[in-house]
Amino acid sequence: MSFDDAFATHAHELVDWIATYLRDVEQYPVRAQTAPGDIARAVDGPPPEEPEPLDEIVADVRDKLLPGITHWQHPAFLAWFANTATTPGILAEMFAAALNANGMVWASSPAASELEHVTMRWLGELLGLGTGWFGQITDTASTSTLLALAAARESDASLDIRERGLAGRADLPAFRIYTSEFAHTVVDKAAMTLGIGLANIVRVPVDSEYRMRPGELARLIAADRASGCRPMAVVGVSGTTSVASIDPLPAIADICAQEKVWMHVDAAYAGSAAIAPEFRWVLEGAERADSVSVNPHKWLVTPIGCSALWVRDVAALRRAFTVVPEFLKTSARDVTDFHDVGFQLGRPFRALKLWMVLRAYGARGLAQIIRAHCALAQRFAEWVRAEPDWEVAAPVHLSLVCFRYAPAGLAPEQADAANTAILESVNRSGRAFLSHTKLGGRIVLRLAVGNARTEERHVRAAWEALREAAPRKM
Amino acid sequence: MSFDDAFATHAHELVDWIATYLRDVEQYPVRAQTAPGDIARAVDGPPPEEPEPLDEIVADVRDKLLPGITHWQHPAFLAWFANTATTPGILAEMFAAALNANGMVWASSPAASELEHVTMRWLGELLGLGTGWFGQITDTASTSTLLALAAARESDASLDIRERGLAGRADLPAFRIYTSEFAHTVVDKAAMTLGIGLANIVRVPVDSEYRMRPGELARLIAADRASGCRPMAVVGVSGTTSVASIDPLPAIADICAQEKVWMHVDAAYAGSAAIAPEFRWVLEGAERADSVSVNPHKWLVTPIGCSALWVRDVAALRRAFTVVPEFLKTSARDVTDFHDVGFQLGRPFRALKLWMVLRAYGARGLAQIIRAHCALAQRFAEWVRAEPDWEVAAPVHLSLVCFRYAPAGLAPEQADAANTAILESVNRSGRAFLSHTKLGGRIVLRLAVGNARTEERHVRAAWEALREAAPRKM
Repeated sequence: MSFDDAFATHAHELVDWIATYLRDVEQYPVRAQTAPGDIARAVDGPPPEEPEPLDEIVADVRDKLLPGITHWQHPAFLAWFANTATTPGILAEMFAAALNANGMVWASSPAASELEHVTMRWLGELLGLGTGWFGQITDTASTSTLLALAAARESDASLDIRERGLAGRADLPAFRIYTSEFAHTVVDKAAMTLGIGLANIVRVPVDSEYRMRPGELARLIAADRASGCRPMAVVGVSGTTSVASIDPLPAIADICAQEKVWMHVDAAYAGSAAIAPEFRWVLEGAERADSVSVNPHKWLVTPIGCSALWVRDVAALRRAFTVVPEFLKTSARDVTDFHDVGFQLGRPFRALKLWMVLRAYGARGLAQIIRAHCALAQRFAEWVRAEPDWEVAAPVHLSLVCFRYAPAGLAPEQADAANTAILESVNRSGRAFLSHTKLGGRIVLRLAVGNARTEERHVRAAWEALREAAPRKM
Repeated sequence: MSFDDAFATHAHELVDWIATYLRDVEQYPVRAQTAPGDIARAVDGPPPEEPEPLDEIVADVRDKLLPGITHWQHPAFLAWFANTATTPGILAEMFAAALNANGMVWASSPAASELEHVTMRWLGELLGLGTGWFGQITDTASTSTLLALAAARESDASLDIRERGLAGRADLPAFRIYTSEFAHTVVDKAAMTLGIGLANIVRVPVDSEYRMRPGELARLIAADRASGCRPMAVVGVSGTTSVASIDPLPAIADICAQEKVWMHVDAAYAGSAAIAPEFRWVLEGAERADSVSVNPHKWLVTPIGCSALWVRDVAALRRAFTVVPEFLKTSARDVTDFHDVGFQLGRPFRALKLWMVLRAYGARGLAQIIRAHCALAQRFAEWVRAEPDWEVAAPVHLSLVCFRYAPAGLAPEQADAANTAILESVNRSGRAFLSHTKLGGRIVLRLAVGNARTEERHVRAAWEALREAAPRKM
């Protein structure tokens, strides 16, 4: 029993609902208005023993679950890094769900494997990364970073880490990973997972614009070598999560080349901007890296579950992950079995959505979106700068603005409390949804433009909501 | 620009196409008939600079990519472990793609977080796992196993592996993982990724029915302790990939309890069967494990990307993975931020499809599917046993039959060649799609019933294709 006969009726109804949802999405509060436990109480009960009508289940999604959805599709979603599922991407997900193809080996769906090669070559060229890469699509920047650093750990084959591991070996020193103080926790999680340890992440100090200081990097690597540690990788960031700063990748590449240390570039957010010629600089130097990751599901309007990873030394990646049991051997030759280059065997058909998005927009269409978002961020920053009692807290290069309410005379702790209260008030209102970070130990607010539906009026409305939420002048 | 206005038109057309595809899927050859490179040549070219019409892109999916799809939805897909995307699951994927919610933290979509708790509790109860678990949904059994073994590695907090890692430590011996010779490579991949090393996987010998021998397990653990290694985890398997054998989990649980070693149960395939009371035995003993994984996307008719993982000691899992940067802190209290219990930050709304499937079928409907598949496997095994020159090569407990062409007098190497040729011939024909493994060093064929559309006539047709492909009698 597969309910195939019921598909058309229910799916057509759902398409109409989705079309209405996308049209009216800004009528919803951006952040879910439910309290912890509300949704669980609405749907909980004993596990279902008997079948229930599909109509009722679908109705429950809309009636009972939707109030607990924070609307990432909302044009006033300005938190973290906003993103978008656009029509070409949603259509691709519909195809993928209907085909249910698993691209674990070439033979299990040749189209999935071959389209991944084509799409990754396209994206690499469009971002100016040049040629000679092995590209693959993973689910998240977390996985991309983990795979890249696993390959880095395996880059010296003579250590035979795949076979012998890291523990109980007198021949191995501590392995060290260097990254900016502002790097994302994807680096932390990879270090924990890979058995490197958080204490072996060396946080390189940043300059006044939150960019890694290459001189400090060189000094820290030298100090580690002197003390017998093994420099394993440097992670340069293009677009740090807190402030969207871009590390000096060319200088980092020089150091990595000289020190023969693996260079990974985490460009999960900012890398997409390189599709616009005027922002190509965000990846300058990345073409010399050993691995690079960029998330099309962040800023290239592709549904969630699409992180692009390029690696130069595919042999290292294969050493880290290739194990082929008899039951997965096939008669196909000269093909890529993508499970060989990662730890996940099951592989949804992720290339399809990126391929459809790239074709539907073209580089020109995607560049227009990037450009518009960056212009909106600049506009917002101008409003903030023009307003007494508010300030922009970090340089605005792309689509993220860090800012705060900072009237003269307010003590730092009071300012932090005021900004936290403003943020919570705006988010609770449902009119806009922003997030925060800390810079120099102080709370700053983050407005990140990244949804393809966001127009100036939405950013304007967010700004009005923020000002209204600020404490009244005495 | 989000193409929202274009959604309804294109999506309705696509729904009609999908409905036809699902109705007519058995008219396609099961395995893609394309040669390596065919699909890449059909879609390759310079990266798209200008936007292309959605109509043309969608047409290209159907015309240029579809020939390269191996049809997992086909009722004669009998390879590896067959699976199904059914209507409730496809509808859920449409919802999820349209909402594009990322459940990384509770506030980023409370419904995703809370539904995951509810659904995992339901499934655990339906499978007879009892209570007291922390459940989560991951993308693959690879990830579930990796998370479980990472928690196992972290189970002794005093070793502080999260901070200090494994390398360069004189205080740590080699860590050892014990599993059946027939365990899946998910264990190998986890051992490689976690820095344990393939050489530290101890392959426990199996009995004549391919089940781990507990006496050997106890002996191997004792030997490792005597030589100073650290037994880290035992992975018992319910449903090995090659032969679907079920390890003696109660005896393994006894040993793990006595030795104080983490017990993980990889029930990715067979665990689903426990939803039928008569197959509840496949998870007997798993309720005493430290962690258990079951893949609803394998045998509970849920689209790909749904592996269920339960862990008892959530503190160990959190030690392994929790790092909360400032930019991810929210004002919500007493909630689960699911990124804290795994390495992936981005989290698609995976609970939705499992929740919709569980409700649409109910335990009764799912049990019927499992039961029907197991009956079909028994029927096929009877046909094989009744046929001269063919034999069943392993006990048939569930929906997998291992068998081979084995006429008297054929030398083993000749029999291997004959079976390989038979398999390739049937798969090339497109009439059915099977896979193979090795038992005792010899090739055996695998017929795995797992698609909800598979009826006796499909298995019968596969059997006819196999016999026709066998060498003619002299």
